[in-house]
Amino acid sequence: MAQTTPNHTQTVSGWAAHDSSGKITPYVFKRRENGIDDVTIQILYCGICHTDLHHVRNDWGITMYPVVPGHEITGVITKVGSNVKRFKEGDRVGVGCLAASCLECEFCKDSQENYCDQIQFTYNGIFWDGSITYGGYSKMLVADQRYVVHVPANLPMDAAAPLLCAGITVFSPMKDNNMLDSPGKKLGVIGLGGLGHVAVKFGKAFGLHVTVISTSPSKEEEARDRLGADDFIVSTSAQQMKAGTRTLDFILDTVSAEHSLGPYLELLKVNGTLVIVGAPDKPMGLPSFPLIFGKRAIKGSMTGGMKETQEMMDVCGKHNITCDVEVITPHKINEALDRLARNDVRYRFVIDIADKPSNL
Amino acid sequence: MAQTTPNHTQTVSGWAAHDSSGKITPYVFKRRENGIDDVTIQILYCGICHTDLHHVRNDWGITMYPVVPGHEITGVITKVGSNVKRFKEGDRVGVGCLAASCLECEFCKDSQENYCDQIQFTYNGIFWDGSITYGGYSKMLVADQRYVVHVPANLPMDAAAPLLCAGITVFSPMKDNNMLDSPGKKLGVIGLGGLGHVAVKFGKAFGLHVTVISTSPSKEEEARDRLGADDFIVSTSAQQMKAGTRTLDFILDTVSAEHSLGPYLELLKVNGTLVIVGAPDKPMGLPSFPLIFGKRAIKGSMTGGMKETQEMMDVCGKHNITCDVEVITPHKINEALDRLARNDVRYRFVIDIADKPSNL
Repeated sequence: MAQTTPNHTQTVSGWAAHDSSGKITPYVFKRRENGIDDVTIQILYCGICHTDLHHVRNDWGITMYPVVPGHEITGVITKVGSNVKRFKEGDRVGVGCLAASCLECEFCKDSQENYCDQIQFTYNGIFWDGSITYGGYSKMLVADQRYVVHVPANLPMDAAAPLLCAGITVFSPMKDNNMLDSPGKKLGVIGLGGLGHVAVKFGKAFGLHVTVISTSPSKEEEARDRLGADDFIVSTSAQQMKAGTRTLDFILDTVSAEHSLGPYLELLKVNGTLVIVGAPDKPMGLPSFPLIFGKRAIKGSMTGGMKETQEMMDVCGKHNITCDVEVITPHKINEALDRLARNDVRYRFVIDIADKPSNL
Repeated sequence: MAQTTPNHTQTVSGWAAHDSSGKITPYVFKRRENGIDDVTIQILYCGICHTDLHHVRNDWGITMYPVVPGHEITGVITKVGSNVKRFKEGDRVGVGCLAASCLECEFCKDSQENYCDQIQFTYNGIFWDGSITYGGYSKMLVADQRYVVHVPANLPMDAAAPLLCAGITVFSPMKDNNMLDSPGKKLGVIGLGGLGHVAVKFGKAFGLHVTVISTSPSKEEEARDRLGADDFIVSTSAQQMKAGTRTLDFILDTVSAEHSLGPYLELLKVNGTLVIVGAPDKPMGLPSFPLIFGKRAIKGSMTGGMKETQEMMDVCGKHNITCDVEVITPHKINEALDRLARNDVRYRFVIDIADKPSNL
């Protein structure tokens, strides 16, 4: 157990769920001493990701309670280990999903740590010393420097926090599928939520033609007028979906609810690619014909490597991209999780952990 | 209707299904005159593809009766149009799935006619003149020269016939995913049937490490000893599937029965690709986690373009690759279709249409 690991001597205040009711309550636990490759971070903000909801409620049957969620973390460095050169005290930094990886496999060596098969996550992971990892719903974090990135000076720390998961999750497949340098290409974004709205912003920053595909006609105005989407398809309209046949080069599917992929695949041109980043609990329906007749591809993508996470943060700094957030105090976490479960948020809750100004 | 199209004056004997019972009986119909871009082919052999079974029984709800199936055709040219330079009388040729395409779109211009959205197939298609296309279960075919390929001199015409569909269907995605020039890469072939056994032969010809994945332990000896597969996984054995985790670079899924993709995806390395060529009727189950955690891809592929079909035939000539066939006389077609429905064939039925020697 984490609490009994000998080198875990630093007492931290946080918030945890203790059973599958998912109810979050204050929780005091211990973190390790700051090691030679570690930085200690005073956490300022932590986004509430849909994955947090799955974990606190044990939807995937893998939760180790008590669980301290949170992997969209921004904060300020208060201590650095003797090997740490990239960071100094006072630096504004972010931590995302990754806490540890083997460092020796082909993926680690290529900074694709996210595909290392020894990967351990920022919370609900098991660290090398046997301790359970605790996330960003807490006042302080000790992190290996490898898994920490700089937050550009022009980005507010609250609205930047969700970039560490939502941002990199959509950025990585866009980069991997050559969407960063293909202005004019046609991007589709399924679902206008925490991930989707950032994908639209990236798409516009990269000069893409962006179509939002949503079940909610009410989101059209917002998508077009505020986020700058070029087109909008109501996915429940057979007519609109038919009109969109073979029009898109690339689709990001951010929906985590159960859905069939068939209708969306038809929107892709021949050779088009749909990337799933939404992680529905149950298997999706995949009809073979739209895949076969259009030589289309479906790919998966999970967060990003550390090098590209820093690249993503720098791109956000350059284009002034942040998430649209609703900042809450820690005692509203349960309410926020309930609202998130109902998709009642535009577009990300962020917990004000430190109660300090966001332009720190 | 085809029969009433004015330029359809050539009487042909063939075999057709007349309703969804799928029963095949002799059928006399008409074909068009040989046009300036056409060749007339005396059909020698025609393979029985699983698609024929779907069509005669109207499994997909798109059959226009009477349907003359057959798109794995070999024969000898008996007439050429005035524009035809690539072929002459007496040439040994093959015709596959394609009968017509628009010739003007980006795909036609790049000899990816198979992805033209105006594509018409060798049977159950509607030709430009409004006539319905009739396939290779018949004595004679008139075909536009574009959709005809040469059969290398060393290949017997009966065992070469299924290459026109089964062969190109597995060759095209292998080429498209760089498996032709990647010796040592690890190929998985799901299903050892008409498509699968040719995929194994191509894999070995290209120097790949080939693993056959099958529900039938009884096929292991055949796969290893006769076809030269390097490894064999019984897909119903959780232990064997687990041992195969993250071992394969590329998988061809040739299974047309309903199945879940999750367990097979786990066999792929990170960044690995599974191509579906089997066209199950019903949607497959696609769990998101194996796709996301391994950044894997699922692609579709449908037959091939004409240029690569000729390339495939030439590769088969060079490596002496043919299909393993059971040759039947036309009056055994119904029995063969019934046996095919039970997977009781190793590996392809071929109809001896002309009752002539196969080394013609």
